[in-house]
Amino acid sequence: MTDPEQRVGEVALPVSPDQMSSDGSVVFIGRIRSPWETRAQCPRNMVQAREQGRTAMIELDETWRLGLTGLKPGAYIIVLYWMQQARRDLILQQPRHKPEATGVFSLRSPARPNPIAMATVRIIELDQARGLITIDAIDCLDGTPLLDIKPWSRAIDASPVQGHSET
Amino acid sequence: MTDPEQRVGEVALPVSPDQMSSDGSVVFIGRIRSPWETRAQCPRNMVQAREQGRTAMIELDETWRLGLTGLKPGAYIIVLYWMQQARRDLILQQPRHKPEATGVFSLRSPARPNPIAMATVRIIELDQARGLITIDAIDCLDGTPLLDIKPWSRAIDASPVQGHSET
Repeated sequence: MTDPEQRVGEVALPVSPDQMSSDGSVVFIGRIRSPWETRAQCPRNMVQAREQGRTAMIELDETWRLGLTGLKPGAYIIVLYWMQQARRDLILQQPRHKPEATGVFSLRSPARPNPIAMATVRIIELDQARGLITIDAIDCLDGTPLLDIKPWSRAIDASPVQGHSET
Repeated sequence: MTDPEQRVGEVALPVSPDQMSSDGSVVFIGRIRSPWETRAQCPRNMVQAREQGRTAMIELDETWRLGLTGLKPGAYIIVLYWMQQARRDLILQQPRHKPEATGVFSLRSPARPNPIAMATVRIIELDQARGLITIDAIDCLDGTPLLDIKPWSRAIDASPVQGHSET
């Protein structure tokens, strides 16, 4: 499903990446259970998601559950998920909060050539046998496919040096 | 190409994810030019990569270059790349620095069901017309396929709250 909406100033590619020949295949290893059932309900980012104060759940399919060994409640993880409803061809986008259209690679929009989203979240509870991880918040629709879980590391993922400049 | 090496205590899945039916397709949007031509040379993570003091280059293919609009030197970006040489079936892994085998989802190993790696790096120079971004460091082999570039955001990607606990 693609979103037909396109705002003034936005530029779409002549061919959408989902029509291009595949360079690699992803497998869905589970899904994210969130309180958000429509796009209108969905927080626009993780800051807004946390403000809602609603937890979410990662459901990991049985095949992969041994891979949770070593994760513990209280730890932060990076979750990668597949934004399957987002269009992949919008190379220049007009966010509501910006004065002009800007490049997809300077935005965290779910609409991107490879629709991989990421969130850094806290593990609240973990049931390895059932493949269930309760997390503090998430910004995606209920049922969003899961691609990966990585441990967050201060040395790697926090601001790498002092004097950091954000876009 | 898969790595036949398997250490004591490691567990592989009966079927590798690259033999499973595809749930989604990625397109390679460019590649990473790094100083590392063999696995032996390659830093094991971004901390080690920075210690080497060598810059690297992102080459973005022409199709996607308009998407760089808005990115500037000095900014931090998150780079997602495809670890095409890593095996995808090692669910329990034995890192050299850990006392016992642990789950893939508590490790930053390139070997994972969906071999998507990520690094937070600083833009040193950017030539949008030629699709070239010089970055401060990288931990992957020369020629590694590029999947995505996202702006790093302190509010989203730094430690979300105080009292953070790492695995």
